[in-house]
Amino acid sequence: MFDHPSDDLSCYTESEIINKIKAWLGTTTGLSPMGIGDDCAVFTPVPKQEYLVSTDALVYGTHFDSSISAQKAGNKLTLRNLSDIAAMGGQPKHATISIISSSKLSIKWLSSFFAGIKETSDQYGLKIVGGDLCRLEGPQFHAVMNIIGSSPRPILRNRAIAKDRIYVTGTLGGSILEKHYCFKPHLSAGQWLSSESLVSSMVDITDGIAKELPFLLSDNTSASINLDNIPISDAAWHLSNQNKQIALKKAFCDGEDYELLFTLNSNADHQKFETQWSSRFPNVKLTQIGTIVSNQGADLIIDQSTQKPIDWILGFDHFKT
Amino acid sequence: MFDHPSDDLSCYTESEIINKIKAWLGTTTGLSPMGIGDDCAVFTPVPKQEYLVSTDALVYGTHFDSSISAQKAGNKLTLRNLSDIAAMGGQPKHATISIISSSKLSIKWLSSFFAGIKETSDQYGLKIVGGDLCRLEGPQFHAVMNIIGSSPRPILRNRAIAKDRIYVTGTLGGSILEKHYCFKPHLSAGQWLSSESLVSSMVDITDGIAKELPFLLSDNTSASINLDNIPISDAAWHLSNQNKQIALKKAFCDGEDYELLFTLNSNADHQKFETQWSSRFPNVKLTQIGTIVSNQGADLIIDQSTQKPIDWILGFDHFKT
Repeated sequence: MFDHPSDDLSCYTESEIINKIKAWLGTTTGLSPMGIGDDCAVFTPVPKQEYLVSTDALVYGTHFDSSISAQKAGNKLTLRNLSDIAAMGGQPKHATISIISSSKLSIKWLSSFFAGIKETSDQYGLKIVGGDLCRLEGPQFHAVMNIIGSSPRPILRNRAIAKDRIYVTGTLGGSILEKHYCFKPHLSAGQWLSSESLVSSMVDITDGIAKELPFLLSDNTSASINLDNIPISDAAWHLSNQNKQIALKKAFCDGEDYELLFTLNSNADHQKFETQWSSRFPNVKLTQIGTIVSNQGADLIIDQSTQKPIDWILGFDHFKT
Repeated sequence: MFDHPSDDLSCYTESEIINKIKAWLGTTTGLSPMGIGDDCAVFTPVPKQEYLVSTDALVYGTHFDSSISAQKAGNKLTLRNLSDIAAMGGQPKHATISIISSSKLSIKWLSSFFAGIKETSDQYGLKIVGGDLCRLEGPQFHAVMNIIGSSPRPILRNRAIAKDRIYVTGTLGGSILEKHYCFKPHLSAGQWLSSESLVSSMVDITDGIAKELPFLLSDNTSASINLDNIPISDAAWHLSNQNKQIALKKAFCDGEDYELLFTLNSNADHQKFETQWSSRFPNVKLTQIGTIVSNQGADLIIDQSTQKPIDWILGFDHFKT
């Protein structure tokens, strides 16, 4: 099971593995948007009722370590999942939690972990309706949360077409300094975007825009990016010792920004859109970072100033080594 | 986090931990049946539409080992979750899968694992609509599945009252020999029971009836059991070298039977009920194993012949050592 170095998970990117899973499941995944691959799964229990399910894990040693309090870990598990709901323009409703843990886990730690879940859930009107407990050998702790939400119009991936404007919220990079466990999921903004019919595609940025930008694209399109417009965070500047090239790379590649990355159809009045944004979300910075293009190859990220593909960027990948 | 032996998870039973979690979450869990603690979570997205969410993990080293093929492991993850839906009388609809794995996992193994998920999903009309991938250090593999289903009347726990008859499907004990990875979840039977309004309470037997029987009980009732009627499986007889006392204990305490345990109100015509069962489910054995009583203490399992509590039985517990 674990001794096949020539063909194990580390030989593939996460996207390649997801594509394999899609192929393995075939018709069992259902047709898009029912199939796998977006921030949330979408299902329609009754006609005209779109439901969303997010599923996201929090693994001790991968997503947090003992430098973060149990309460902040509980906050983070909930926030991560809420961000997936936000990325579909959804409203969170009900959640389940699976705990897979060593029996040596301190009950006090678990209590604080749930205090964190409760705190964030209450803040966003989420009810915890069920779950599962399971024992594991060794000093380990994993939690998987599923949130069920709803949206009148879930905003999917792979729907951006040529001339769409590419926007990003907030600032990017360096979340490791603090933001990765105390960010605000953009639920209200996501819901408003869902009501704006010319918003064509959206994801939340969990693995860096270098990895997330291609997810927005429909067939035979690329993302042309104005590098001067990338909103680099103070943390990214700090971590790169004010070196712009390094800071830019951090803004492109660092994980866990949990900002929204979305596209607006070229038929939209983008000035009116931006004005409405500023009045509705005065505390959430919005930046146009580029445009979708169809004449420069597929699935690329292009430097708008040189018109050449940016090849120095790699998003965070969970498996490939 | 892991170095508090005087107050870690091993000091508590799973039920005690679940009760603590309920207390920690307070109003964030919602009111029953919305709260945690049943085979599935129940939520009502629109009035008169009851939805169910099951969540169940499959952990390498705990629920399966390398003696079982990847495909059978995939079957098992799906079957376990379907059994939770069956235990509420539900119809399975959509599922998500979280994979938490070492990057050293063989891609061929993962492919066979998904072949098992697909095989069982197709058999029961389940669509896989989403999921998550997450890396873990060390030779480990965990999968968490959530199934969303629906039921016009979910059958809950803790609803059995005095004089209710206690029934069990199939035979009990010794599932370790084979049944634990190739059982049939009783979905059709569960759905029919949900349509019978005098069926008062139901669970699926994952940790042995010794542990599951108390889950059926409402306040101040106990389960009076006719030990001669316990349907001991051939596997349990075999594993106990035909010793009745040992075989009985296996039938009470072994995990992973995935049979249904339910109660029928005393106002029901039980002979008609049993006749209907036989004609609808000729291949699923049904046995009345006892009656709910209210005059002999609370939350006990009583030997009907001696009228004394059975104290030699302990169900499988995930944490307590």
